[in-house]
Amino acid sequence: MRILTAGESHGACNIAIIEGFPKGVRLEESIINKDLLRRMHGAGRGKRMALEQDQAKIIAGLRNKFSLGSPIALLIANKDNQIFSQKKDLLKSLNVPRPAHADLSGSLKYQEKDIRNILERASARETVARVACGSVCKQFLSNFGISFASFTVSVGQVYSGCKPKNTAEILSKTKKSKLNCIDPLAEEKMIDLINECADSHDTLGGIVELWIDGLVAGIGNMMHFDRRLDAKLASGLMSIPAVKGVEVGLGFDYAKQRGSKSHDAIYYSSSKGFYRKTNNSGGIEGGLSTGEPVVLRLAMKPIATLTKPLESVNMVTKRKAKAPSVRSDTCAIAALGPISESMAAISVFDSFLEKFGSDSLKEIQRSYLQYKRNIHRFK
Amino acid sequence: MRILTAGESHGACNIAIIEGFPKGVRLEESIINKDLLRRMHGAGRGKRMALEQDQAKIIAGLRNKFSLGSPIALLIANKDNQIFSQKKDLLKSLNVPRPAHADLSGSLKYQEKDIRNILERASARETVARVACGSVCKQFLSNFGISFASFTVSVGQVYSGCKPKNTAEILSKTKKSKLNCIDPLAEEKMIDLINECADSHDTLGGIVELWIDGLVAGIGNMMHFDRRLDAKLASGLMSIPAVKGVEVGLGFDYAKQRGSKSHDAIYYSSSKGFYRKTNNSGGIEGGLSTGEPVVLRLAMKPIATLTKPLESVNMVTKRKAKAPSVRSDTCAIAALGPISESMAAISVFDSFLEKFGSDSLKEIQRSYLQYKRNIHRFK
Amino acid sequence: MRILTAGESHGACNIAIIEGFPKGVRLEESIINKDLLRRMHGAGRGKRMALEQDQAKIIAGLRNKFSLGSPIALLIANKDNQIFSQKKDLLKSLNVPRPAHADLSGSLKYQEKDIRNILERASARETVARVACGSVCKQFLSNFGISFASFTVSVGQVYSGCKPKNTAEILSKTKKSKLNCIDPLAEEKMIDLINECADSHDTLGGIVELWIDGLVAGIGNMMHFDRRLDAKLASGLMSIPAVKGVEVGLGFDYAKQRGSKSHDAIYYSSSKGFYRKTNNSGGIEGGLSTGEPVVLRLAMKPIATLTKPLESVNMVTKRKAKAPSVRSDTCAIAALGPISESMAAISVFDSFLEKFGSDSLKEIQRSYLQYKRNIHRFK
Amino acid sequence: MRILTAGESHGACNIAIIEGFPKGVRLEESIINKDLLRRMHGAGRGKRMALEQDQAKIIAGLRNKFSLGSPIALLIANKDNQIFSQKKDLLKSLNVPRPAHADLSGSLKYQEKDIRNILERASARETVARVACGSVCKQFLSNFGISFASFTVSVGQVYSGCKPKNTAEILSKTKKSKLNCIDPLAEEKMIDLINECADSHDTLGGIVELWIDGLVAGIGNMMHFDRRLDAKLASGLMSIPAVKGVEVGLGFDYAKQRGSKSHDAIYYSSSKGFYRKTNNSGGIEGGLSTGEPVVLRLAMKPIATLTKPLESVNMVTKRKAKAPSVRSDTCAIAALGPISESMAAISVFDSFLEKFGSDSLKEIQRSYLQYKRNIHRFK
Repeated sequence: MRILTAGESHGACNIAIIEGFPKGVRLEESIINKDLLRRMHGAGRGKRMALEQDQAKIIAGLRNKFSLGSPIALLIANKDNQIFSQKKDLLKSLNVPRPAHADLSGSLKYQEKDIRNILERASARETVARVACGSVCKQFLSNFGISFASFTVSVGQVYSGCKPKNTAEILSKTKKSKLNCIDPLAEEKMIDLINECADSHDTLGGIVELWIDGLVAGIGNMMHFDRRLDAKLASGLMSIPAVKGVEVGLGFDYAKQRGSKSHDAIYYSSSKGFYRKTNNSGGIEGGLSTGEPVVLRLAMKPIATLTKPLESVNMVTKRKAKAPSVRSDTCAIAALGPISESMAAISVFDSFLEKFGSDSLKEIQRSYLQYKRNIHRFK
Repeated sequence: MRILTAGESHGACNIAIIEGFPKGVRLEESIINKDLLRRMHGAGRGKRMALEQDQAKIIAGLRNKFSLGSPIALLIANKDNQIFSQKKDLLKSLNVPRPAHADLSGSLKYQEKDIRNILERASARETVARVACGSVCKQFLSNFGISFASFTVSVGQVYSGCKPKNTAEILSKTKKSKLNCIDPLAEEKMIDLINECADSHDTLGGIVELWIDGLVAGIGNMMHFDRRLDAKLASGLMSIPAVKGVEVGLGFDYAKQRGSKSHDAIYYSSSKGFYRKTNNSGGIEGGLSTGEPVVLRLAMKPIATLTKPLESVNMVTKRKAKAPSVRSDTCAIAALGPISESMAAISVFDSFLEKFGSDSLKEIQRSYLQYKRNIHRFK
Repeated sequence: MRILTAGESHGACNIAIIEGFPKGVRLEESIINKDLLRRMHGAGRGKRMALEQDQAKIIAGLRNKFSLGSPIALLIANKDNQIFSQKKDLLKSLNVPRPAHADLSGSLKYQEKDIRNILERASARETVARVACGSVCKQFLSNFGISFASFTVSVGQVYSGCKPKNTAEILSKTKKSKLNCIDPLAEEKMIDLINECADSHDTLGGIVELWIDGLVAGIGNMMHFDRRLDAKLASGLMSIPAVKGVEVGLGFDYAKQRGSKSHDAIYYSSSKGFYRKTNNSGGIEGGLSTGEPVVLRLAMKPIATLTKPLESVNMVTKRKAKAPSVRSDTCAIAALGPISESMAAISVFDSFLEKFGSDSLKEIQRSYLQYKRNIHRFK
Repeated sequence: MRILTAGESHGACNIAIIEGFPKGVRLEESIINKDLLRRMHGAGRGKRMALEQDQAKIIAGLRNKFSLGSPIALLIANKDNQIFSQKKDLLKSLNVPRPAHADLSGSLKYQEKDIRNILERASARETVARVACGSVCKQFLSNFGISFASFTVSVGQVYSGCKPKNTAEILSKTKKSKLNCIDPLAEEKMIDLINECADSHDTLGGIVELWIDGLVAGIGNMMHFDRRLDAKLASGLMSIPAVKGVEVGLGFDYAKQRGSKSHDAIYYSSSKGFYRKTNNSGGIEGGLSTGEPVVLRLAMKPIATLTKPLESVNMVTKRKAKAPSVRSDTCAIAALGPISESMAAISVFDSFLEKFGSDSLKEIQRSYLQYKRNIHRFK
């Protein structure tokens, strides 16, 4: 399975190709568009977000709503692309890099004076293509009872105290939330904090928790390090702009524990098969899914572009300068939820096909059901 | 650049091939063996570790100590491999999976009754091949002034308070440490804790901090998500057995901060070029190195095999059983340092070649020096 | 460098993404469109070809005609896509597979009753995306004096006797040819043969010769088998629909020769550097370019869809049936030229970046010029 | 599935790792060694071949002769490796490149004065690791009734006229042949030619035909060009040193034919399922196996090292010089058979796992049998 994305922030569109997608999977653009909508909204977002209403079109790989086995191509047009086109645009050169962006390192890497040529692709706008891909993967995985959900654990120093039981609970509780939160009281405080922070022209980050339910045991591979499920998830999640930390299950708290108190004892019942009563491992042991919910947490740094700009340097004159202040988001934590679900869905999809083959949904379902029966009885 | 490893815990050897390694690089087995020694030692390790003295041999890719441009092959013989061979071995079948290992999920995945067939490859013994590969990558990168170092931040709830300035300081301070620590007072307490824990037949985890000095700005790639340096590092580090969390720079603490206080302002001087006075980003912005030290932290869970065993189930009879208690390590945090350096070195090596080509050291050096001059003056 | 394509024959469009394309390369859609035009035209083609006028649009990766270093996305709309869309189409099911197509094996592979779901992607229409990608790669390579040209050697049993000196001669002589031929007398006979063959409702194949001029010595890699230039070219060229044979230099005729008469002796002059007086190797020795022109030949089988249809079987009823006769081309040899140039350009581009890095044209040019100087003097 | 090989001609050993090999496959070293023996022997080989008796050892991935699902590592020690070791060897520098080898292009690529550093890896000795890998893949595929065989079609201008029916016939007829021939009369003439050629200090090439029996329809993938079975086979076969041409089925002869006479009509019977009465396609249509035998032909150029040496140039002095004459083989066509079978087996193995998953033989067998039933009835 291979995925490539393309597209600049002010270009014509964002685009993605998913190669190796199985045949016979029903795919709905409307479901993708719901994920795209979740990516755009949320408290703390500025005006560009309000205007855009991203619509993904599946422009290849589908007939009568079912996948053909050929590569899936997705296209999301940019709404405000009038300023950037193939004809000579008249945009002014940007010479002052914003700290915490790819601006400086990207300009150095490519020895590029006009930072606009760097930030166009490095922009978080690019995640729109990833969310569309992830939504397609989620639609495939839903055929196997696998579901994804995420919620905001914290914004700045305001924490949510609620612990969910499963993705269904998260999905239901976050539905009406402005911050992808399952804890209405904490959410209120988070919004207050965001508003206060916006007033002081500052920005905020936060923590998101991500759940994957219904993943059968044995997905991933411990036979080579780069095929472990946790390694793939970590790569995908850390690649999200602004994410600076990823943990699985207890994560960093594991380091404080003792083995006797933290490892998940193993049980068996004829109805459940092998199971656990605790899930400190976050559903992954030895690089493989355990059959329990997969639980991950991600740390997001504060938004890098401030309206009260940071110190920087003009790359041409080498003189001190204020970083430009292009955008007016205060906190993008609500968007991190759907983006992280998407990256996780891509990783799980990849590992899932590795185990069950990739030609057609029917064949995969047959292998999957047989496998599920086998590991339940384990004879 | 491609790396594959092979080898079982009680097989003849562990082995690795590094394909795409440049020509003309001086490689010393003695340096690899020093890293292998660091991997084995440390307070908290049981007897197997004491006996083994791993020796890597470079069995292909080298002539008169210089790389030929052909694949490098590394072989580390296992010292206690008499029990496991190609002839029919007489080892008893293992049927009770240890929690927190790949035992259960691996057995289910492969529908395998004898857990020994799972744990042989899933064993942390496999990291010996990774350390050897990482050491080869480090030897290449040392030609560009890039150095790696790591230290133990915590064991259980005992924390080190020291903040190092650079890899040189870390290397010097950890040299004589039994726990890869830079804080002798904390180390003493950590060892006390480990001893107390060993007495109660329990196990511990901890946190390691990893530094990379000398990495020029612009390594990694923000043009496609899977080529970002942070994504590659996260994948490599999370793939280490027992690692459950990875963070870059401030990491999870970023989530509590405001943008104005946490982002690293940009400066320029004719002697230093572009530089920062702070390094909260951990040397990576937008998936690219910034030129400042790369700083990462990893969380390790407590060792999974306890001498006071956990609850489990016999996979054949489906009856309750105690997990077997094969090994007697209490804490492996001292080993995590060199292992994490190695995985980081592999990721950096990969991204470095991506930018500067891969045929020969001479050509890479020429490109590198030209690039360094260019980004310093930036004209 | 990675390339993915997507698109069905009667879908909305064909599309491609080229990831890892260097920054700072001038790209012209008009040049791509010329290659697309060459792909469509030529004696022996039916009516669909006459109607279409493929236009590629670069929808990502470009600003003011220069590449940004971000992925290049190419889109070629299908002109006759009205019948196949995302809404439920009303196309009749196809149940009789055409011999020599993917129809039967594809239907079996995917257990698909309606062959239309197979042939949509397996159609040679898909090569439109490859030609667009190849044209982009050629535009990059033209910065290094590398040029591609091809000509028709034979149609059925009519052979051209002319031997070209270089790509410039081929390009000039084929410019006005209806069959991509450099031998006007042979071309006339080929066209007569095609017309006669069309009258008898039959089809023809032929042989194409492909030249690459200006490729410096040392491109490709003999250190691992899958990185050899000849292996990459063979893979790309054999993947073209209807191609059943690929040879380099003397190719199959080498098998009849003696070593003393066929190997290319080595010479040196201060003006030329190392060079050859013969080029039986076709410019590739040991998987590496020699600096002489790369010369390849491809065999194309006759077009698989005949208006006088072949015997087949209805896959539903299992009864004998005539294969459907959808299209009316007699010979597609003129299209094979530009398609094969494109696939060759993709392979060469890949190997070229492997040697010289991939960030920006300027850096690549610097490395390239230095390398050229070095191998000329070879001190 | 990934394969890497390492090893130099006069180094300690040749070595390979196969990652992604399924669990539960019985592997015999003795079968590998038979293939290695076939690679060494044959009329036309010089003295080194006579002395060596290559023995492969499976040093990882196996327990009690069954694969564990972990990477398979193979090691073949070099018998005459005393001259080349990790200590400073005293071999004289080689400065005159042999035409038709990687010597010149490799030296230029790596800017290397001592050609020995190039030829050590570029040597055909490296194919010993590929044959070992191929033999492992063949042992896996034999569980599915898939068999490989090859025979010499021609040496110089002496051709064999026999047409085999299947791999069983080829295997039986070549068993006692000194030239991997199925035509004893032609073989005699070939050996005469080789002897005559050896007397005149010259060398010869030839043509080999390769058969794969028992491959079910639908292996390979036409949904993306680089996943086609013919593209993979072409890449693997063209990567063999000295191979300059590859064709499938009628190959270059297709170019002379008409569609009505050359395409393989489709039939169905309840006992055979879908089948063909002819096999001009060589068992591959649209990049997929058809279920008929896969038939390929390869052209080998004459051996590049002559005892009557070719003209060349001393790379240091730039003066005319005779190419060194290291080896005394006259014709290596008998070795090309097993080498080509191995490269084909690797490609088929890869495509086979792509369709049926890769965890364990049992699961793959279940999927395979179900698929076979389905495509036979095709309901």
